[in-house]
Amino acid sequence: MLPAGAHVRAVYLGDLHGGVGLLNIVQDNTLLIDCSTIDPDSARLVANEAQNKRLLFVDSPVSGGVAGAKAATLTFIVGGSDEAFSKANAILRYMGKNVFHAGKAGDGQMAKICNNLMLGILMSGTCEALNLGIDHGLDPKVLSNIMLQSSGRNWALELYNPCPGVMDSAPASNQYNPGFMSKLMLKDLGLGLDAALQTNSSVPMGSLARNLYAFHNASGHAELDFSSLFEFYKNQKG
Amino acid sequence: MLPAGAHVRAVYLGDLHGGVGLLNIVQDNTLLIDCSTIDPDSARLVANEAQNKRLLFVDSPVSGGVAGAKAATLTFIVGGSDEAFSKANAILRYMGKNVFHAGKAGDGQMAKICNNLMLGILMSGTCEALNLGIDHGLDPKVLSNIMLQSSGRNWALELYNPCPGVMDSAPASNQYNPGFMSKLMLKDLGLGLDAALQTNSSVPMGSLARNLYAFHNASGHAELDFSSLFEFYKNQKG
Amino acid sequence: MLPAGAHVRAVYLGDLHGGVGLLNIVQDNTLLIDCSTIDPDSARLVANEAQNKRLLFVDSPVSGGVAGAKAATLTFIVGGSDEAFSKANAILRYMGKNVFHAGKAGDGQMAKICNNLMLGILMSGTCEALNLGIDHGLDPKVLSNIMLQSSGRNWALELYNPCPGVMDSAPASNQYNPGFMSKLMLKDLGLGLDAALQTNSSVPMGSLARNLYAFHNASGHAELDFSSLFEFYKNQKG
Amino acid sequence: MLPAGAHVRAVYLGDLHGGVGLLNIVQDNTLLIDCSTIDPDSARLVANEAQNKRLLFVDSPVSGGVAGAKAATLTFIVGGSDEAFSKANAILRYMGKNVFHAGKAGDGQMAKICNNLMLGILMSGTCEALNLGIDHGLDPKVLSNIMLQSSGRNWALELYNPCPGVMDSAPASNQYNPGFMSKLMLKDLGLGLDAALQTNSSVPMGSLARNLYAFHNASGHAELDFSSLFEFYKNQKG
Repeated sequence: MLPAGAHVRAVYLGDLHGGVGLLNIVQDNTLLIDCSTIDPDSARLVANEAQNKRLLFVDSPVSGGVAGAKAATLTFIVGGSDEAFSKANAILRYMGKNVFHAGKAGDGQMAKICNNLMLGILMSGTCEALNLGIDHGLDPKVLSNIMLQSSGRNWALELYNPCPGVMDSAPASNQYNPGFMSKLMLKDLGLGLDAALQTNSSVPMGSLARNLYAFHNASGHAELDFSSLFEFYKNQKG
Repeated sequence: MLPAGAHVRAVYLGDLHGGVGLLNIVQDNTLLIDCSTIDPDSARLVANEAQNKRLLFVDSPVSGGVAGAKAATLTFIVGGSDEAFSKANAILRYMGKNVFHAGKAGDGQMAKICNNLMLGILMSGTCEALNLGIDHGLDPKVLSNIMLQSSGRNWALELYNPCPGVMDSAPASNQYNPGFMSKLMLKDLGLGLDAALQTNSSVPMGSLARNLYAFHNASGHAELDFSSLFEFYKNQKG
Repeated sequence: MLPAGAHVRAVYLGDLHGGVGLLNIVQDNTLLIDCSTIDPDSARLVANEAQNKRLLFVDSPVSGGVAGAKAATLTFIVGGSDEAFSKANAILRYMGKNVFHAGKAGDGQMAKICNNLMLGILMSGTCEALNLGIDHGLDPKVLSNIMLQSSGRNWALELYNPCPGVMDSAPASNQYNPGFMSKLMLKDLGLGLDAALQTNSSVPMGSLARNLYAFHNASGHAELDFSSLFEFYKNQKG
Repeated sequence: MLPAGAHVRAVYLGDLHGGVGLLNIVQDNTLLIDCSTIDPDSARLVANEAQNKRLLFVDSPVSGGVAGAKAATLTFIVGGSDEAFSKANAILRYMGKNVFHAGKAGDGQMAKICNNLMLGILMSGTCEALNLGIDHGLDPKVLSNIMLQSSGRNWALELYNPCPGVMDSAPASNQYNPGFMSKLMLKDLGLGLDAALQTNSSVPMGSLARNLYAFHNASGHAELDFSSLFEFYKNQKG
């Protein structure tokens, strides 16, 4: 699990400083499972080279964090051939609750990118809607309960309410201890923008969520849980 | 169920053209249930006048549409005193699946406004994330299934997928026959902006969703289901 | 010069508390010049009533601030009949450098609204572009000079650079002493959103500028000059 | 003048297919002027390699289009050492009206990126403000004239009004024949987003302008002048 495409390419393909590249070392038919969250192109490049060397490679970005790892409830979103997926699944299913075959090589990364674009949108949207209600005198617990059972329902309201005091188990009620750090949300939203730039896709909502996190992180919140964006809206009332 | 605050004020309070106003006609202790979706201030004004006249008034905006009415599965989001709510609930529970007491007079309107702000955000976000995946070669059914079981989960992915062919029962798979018309989504998002202007609240995500719907509606989509925003992203690929 | 439409309507038309209304007091053919910045509908209502009473009324919002008043270099943007404009211009030209006839009653307000929507957009855009350059090691004076003579040229770069130290006369180089307060920029952008809601117009750029100012004002910057938004971008780097 | 960093790197540095790279061919002390508009990192890389080979390199992106080239009124925004700039300027001043020394290697690209981010913001903002006024019955010529002499003043209103019929010389009054194509505006705004992603800078206004152009281009307007975004707002009124 490496931070970015450049690292993954260097590890698997080698580099200009004498690094040999894992693809050149391992035996034929070795299964390579890469759980980094990186740009899809890097994953596709490595997968292609792996195929040329008769190796099996899947991109298998993960979510669920440390808690998910401890509880073996991680989610793996896998890209690769049916054969490679089948072999990877045999292992990953012991570590996770959900193992998805998203498509061909690189599609694991891409599906996670799309999911996390949605996550940034729904978290910022939930922070915004709850704060608007609070500004108008609504009780956030009452409002959250209503929205959870109405068409505003989403993962944050279900499992990760960003308003302190509404959900005991959520980081919001634990000083925003991560969880999932704001700086990682920013990284993932950046991957979403990169992908959109590649295909000239319009991503106004995801871009705006990304820019809100950029503001939030730069003022010292980068290492707090990403639900702390709630404070970016709230603290503003001084 | 009237379209706007001006109508509600005229009906209950009377107007300058000889209209008497319902509050001046009904007997003491009459319970008045107003199911319009309007600005909270109008609801508060009428509730206040009702109280002066020893009448019980609740603002009780509803969601669920024609389908929900037929199936008696509507959601009512009620604002008013405990006494007024208790009496209203005795009636509304026969028409709906959920009857929420959001708070005092006007809070029914405000809670619905917050919910529908979130709805506009999650629907536009879902359209955006699915289209980005499609632009990168992902199968929308596969991607939707992954997101539905991951942190991108939200009401649209659960019950109202905006991509044609993914969910048989959704308007997207029925020529976007409403459902809930885009023009009504625009109206509700407008109420959200109004509320935010009142309290100087920042609502960047909801404002952007509102403006996307303004573009979409003005090009002939106003009477299609609001999930047709999917096409605003998709058709753009010509 | 009153703060909002409600005040203007009360002063000219009277109210429910015994206030008579200026239109009922003044002599026939009196010229009324209202320099408030308010919603166009209120201006149109008063102008209409004035016409019924054989009075001349113009909406004539102003810009240029205290400095402009002292130097007689104010700008007036006038709405009203040709006759009313002609009479108003005879007076206003002594107080201002520019007196524009924007159109019929209410158009003075509307033209100012459009101008100030653009102002919010160009000021936030200039803050954003300069900060991006600074983040990449560019000298803001050098960058400002280049943009001023290129296609990025705009009123802020010409007369009101928001980066401290670039332009001696600008509020940015004087602790952001107003000038034109951020809270007034927020008010004007709110009038722009109101106008857009009325006609279902899409205003994504102006809405976003409005929401940035809402964030900025709520954290204690409301009474600083509106160019202080530069700090909203900059301080974020901690 | 090449389309992207990858091409520039290949031409100057060589590639993996036998291409030698210009830096390896030219004589010592050759002055290399690269007028591509590309990412700053590629420019910095080539400049660094050039320096190692005792060559002089400047990044010198240009604006002014075909018309500017014919009239020798181009603008060059140059990055490089003082020595390299001085030598480049001796040549460029014959081709352009403005030759700016933006800073060190790569700063020419970065300054142009910042300028064009501002350009996308002011053009979309001008389209938006003018359309809002038109939606409220204002004459766009009258409104443009007012804004041009007020605080809404910007390069588009000065030289490139996007509303058909307002300015005879502008592309808007010539079927939006470019000029500067929408697809090039989208490219440049993409470079702006890339730069922002590198430094974690927040660019909400520029991102939104980018996404509006992404919508606009994908529906067949990519080869029209970038001021045709006016129609994206206008046509929406069907």
